[in-house]
Amino acid sequence: MADPRFFRRAKPISLADLAKIANATITGDVAPDRTFADVKALSEAGPEDVSFLDNKRYADTFSTSEAGACVVEAAYANRAPSGMALLISDAPYLGYALIAAAFYPLQADESTNVSANAHVAASASVGDGARIEAGAVIQAHAEISAGVHISSGVVVGPGVVVGTGTRIGPNTCLSHCLIGDRVIIHGGVNIGQDGFGFALSPAGHHKVPQLGRVIIEDDVEIGANTTIDRGAGPDTVVGAGTKIDNLVQIAHNVRIGKGCIIVSQVGISGSTEIGDFVMIGGQAGLTGHLKVGSRSKIAAQSGVMRNVDPGGTIGGSPAKPMRDWLKEVALVDRLVKNKNR
Amino acid sequence: MADPRFFRRAKPISLADLAKIANATITGDVAPDRTFADVKALSEAGPEDVSFLDNKRYADTFSTSEAGACVVEAAYANRAPSGMALLISDAPYLGYALIAAAFYPLQADESTNVSANAHVAASASVGDGARIEAGAVIQAHAEISAGVHISSGVVVGPGVVVGTGTRIGPNTCLSHCLIGDRVIIHGGVNIGQDGFGFALSPAGHHKVPQLGRVIIEDDVEIGANTTIDRGAGPDTVVGAGTKIDNLVQIAHNVRIGKGCIIVSQVGISGSTEIGDFVMIGGQAGLTGHLKVGSRSKIAAQSGVMRNVDPGGTIGGSPAKPMRDWLKEVALVDRLVKNKNR
Amino acid sequence: MADPRFFRRAKPISLADLAKIANATITGDVAPDRTFADVKALSEAGPEDVSFLDNKRYADTFSTSEAGACVVEAAYANRAPSGMALLISDAPYLGYALIAAAFYPLQADESTNVSANAHVAASASVGDGARIEAGAVIQAHAEISAGVHISSGVVVGPGVVVGTGTRIGPNTCLSHCLIGDRVIIHGGVNIGQDGFGFALSPAGHHKVPQLGRVIIEDDVEIGANTTIDRGAGPDTVVGAGTKIDNLVQIAHNVRIGKGCIIVSQVGISGSTEIGDFVMIGGQAGLTGHLKVGSRSKIAAQSGVMRNVDPGGTIGGSPAKPMRDWLKEVALVDRLVKNKNR
Repeated sequence: MADPRFFRRAKPISLADLAKIANATITGDVAPDRTFADVKALSEAGPEDVSFLDNKRYADTFSTSEAGACVVEAAYANRAPSGMALLISDAPYLGYALIAAAFYPLQADESTNVSANAHVAASASVGDGARIEAGAVIQAHAEISAGVHISSGVVVGPGVVVGTGTRIGPNTCLSHCLIGDRVIIHGGVNIGQDGFGFALSPAGHHKVPQLGRVIIEDDVEIGANTTIDRGAGPDTVVGAGTKIDNLVQIAHNVRIGKGCIIVSQVGISGSTEIGDFVMIGGQAGLTGHLKVGSRSKIAAQSGVMRNVDPGGTIGGSPAKPMRDWLKEVALVDRLVKNKNR
Repeated sequence: MADPRFFRRAKPISLADLAKIANATITGDVAPDRTFADVKALSEAGPEDVSFLDNKRYADTFSTSEAGACVVEAAYANRAPSGMALLISDAPYLGYALIAAAFYPLQADESTNVSANAHVAASASVGDGARIEAGAVIQAHAEISAGVHISSGVVVGPGVVVGTGTRIGPNTCLSHCLIGDRVIIHGGVNIGQDGFGFALSPAGHHKVPQLGRVIIEDDVEIGANTTIDRGAGPDTVVGAGTKIDNLVQIAHNVRIGKGCIIVSQVGISGSTEIGDFVMIGGQAGLTGHLKVGSRSKIAAQSGVMRNVDPGGTIGGSPAKPMRDWLKEVALVDRLVKNKNR
Repeated sequence: MADPRFFRRAKPISLADLAKIANATITGDVAPDRTFADVKALSEAGPEDVSFLDNKRYADTFSTSEAGACVVEAAYANRAPSGMALLISDAPYLGYALIAAAFYPLQADESTNVSANAHVAASASVGDGARIEAGAVIQAHAEISAGVHISSGVVVGPGVVVGTGTRIGPNTCLSHCLIGDRVIIHGGVNIGQDGFGFALSPAGHHKVPQLGRVIIEDDVEIGANTTIDRGAGPDTVVGAGTKIDNLVQIAHNVRIGKGCIIVSQVGISGSTEIGDFVMIGGQAGLTGHLKVGSRSKIAAQSGVMRNVDPGGTIGGSPAKPMRDWLKEVALVDRLVKNKNR
């Protein structure tokens, strides 16, 4: 089981309830009221554990697993070991996520209140059930909504709005921004500082006032030590449900659509607009003023210098259509090999 | 207008005063005592707003803009819509920056003093008008000059000197460093920790004492979550007026000249020396012990493994003269296309 | 000498004692009881200083140096200037490191105790001689071992264990992790937040509970603003003696062996396993689920998409054996030059 120093496990759950939780159908010769105690990987699970199969690479492990129950697609049912309860689902990884969350619910906070060692400005508002830990600083006129969790060391700047149920990790700094509901921001994140805007000149670079904000819509997640600059005049926007990993840089005026996945160490330059459900691999860089179409995919380490068509897939630096990039890689390999002969 | 939760706008300003502020000359048929209320982008500005044209891509937008006044080069004057007041300038973006700063001056701090919830060592000194926010920690013998703004959560280590008028963003950590005047350091920055110096050995890597400092000269700006290691014996130096973006890594003994522009996620390895007015694009990496000449330009994502000539422009990984890199990119494209046929 | 604001120098040390400290043998015509006062680079050292020669590039500097003593390999002894005391060693950089540490020992903390301005939960334990600075937060049931130094602004989450003699830099955040003995973690580091794990779906990305921990073994060093996510079920592990630079990203379930060197801005994707004594250059990126063999070397900016053999050396993006990559670079250079003609 998960280390009890860090995780608190709920009581055992019956197979029938697991099926409801995971939106799955039970098959196999197991009583629906049989209970299970925990979640584990296929190779480590025992009779009391629930596991899942989501990747065909692990199909053999599935066939020999000792897991008592498994969330799995119907197509694999006939490869299950005998005695295993099957929770048949079209989305087994999602099913597993729901079951794991049932076994390890977000821990009820021991206290749902404002620490005596937090520094909350008199003009700030704090909603019902909000928790503000020791050492956090909430500045003038900030609005902390109901159910928000502000960790130690967080600095919420003047006027910032944090929506209902949002959680902010330790030592994160928010300024000049409006944060939606159910957002998760990890530790060390910096949102709303003024962007990298200068009128360049041999006599010295002159700072250009940055008069926009950062808007983080509902259900966004932002990884540790990521930085998001506020807009120069327009806002910088991260659309609902978008998930951003650690150490990502998002420059001023960038607009990111809904449901995007942005992996660690990506950098997005100023004023670039990204559609919905775009996926950007780790360490990719995008220059400024681009338009990246919805549902496009950008490979890790790409250097994107041109607009990307909706649904397109690109790679390389400078980036090109994935098909051409793969050809390029193969061609260069072949040239080197010919040279070797 | 900019969100009043975050920005406080000054009173309207007359055209004559705007011309003085921007070092511009008035043309057009508008009374010099007519006042303007705000700054806005060309496409959004109305009769009361001042805008600017700095990029010929937006010349058409300029011609149809409803802005009451616009900072613009003389060459574009004849394309202005009728009724628009023109503020003619050789440096319109700089002119705009000055005007925007006049409309939105740095907010006078509500309090210019040391928070009762800051932790300031008895042996530290704090200059006149310095502001130290709740939760900041100023350690032994640190010197905070007049007019400095230290945000919440900042940690200023023993002996550190912070120059006049410098502003330090929240949760930034300073140690073993001397910071100049009018420097801006954003949140989450780490300056002065000991560099990555080890005597490597199969028996274990032995830490080498790092006995230098970090020197940040006047008018430098440093972006959020950037890291600058102190020197191993010599100092790590960032020259006056240099602007560094977010998430940049600067290793021990690096010396950066004056007026450089270093974009987000750049990494500069130990002991590399960079001249004056060098521009380094995002995510570029420089190996150690290089010399990069003044006024050179390094493209985004470059991998720089050799010295760079003064005034040179390079790109690619490994980096080469820009001309050769562009040829390489075109050549590979052509090879792939020929292969396609 | 090093800036006394930041470093405190010990008393002069005799040549005989220096030899013992550095495990070196004395040669040259200098009395073993002669004392030396400081360490300096070859070009700056004077008669009272100890220097070192570790890189043949500096052999000429060595021959003309005025250093009173020098740690050097036997092969260079005959190139020493007359009058210089030689400390002959097979590992002169290590010898220097030991001598520098003797001249500048880690400063005895002025106070070895818990600041009245730290926030330590009643259920947390704090070992003998541990120092916890102002503004640090130690949450419920955390265990701080003897001799630990916790800097200002650090947040130690519930249940976290910090081993003996470990030092944690300012504003670092630890959760869901077990930290070994004699570990050094610089400022702004985030360890133990939950990894980037989602069940992706057009209806929205669903967060998958991350039930593992981060295990940092003994003698590890972790650079400023680095991020290490906790495991999804298995743990994320950093092996004993591994040194990690600034701004590195380590994703969930990654296992890093012993004695590795991981340079700044590297990104390692989920579930990748890295052997012992692996060296990874700056800004390299590794995709997930890879196996990287012991003693392999990965060049800076590499994009690693396949397993790496033990002892292998690779470079490029996508990465290939170094030999092939160098050929590729040379070949492309030649094609461009031919084209030029």
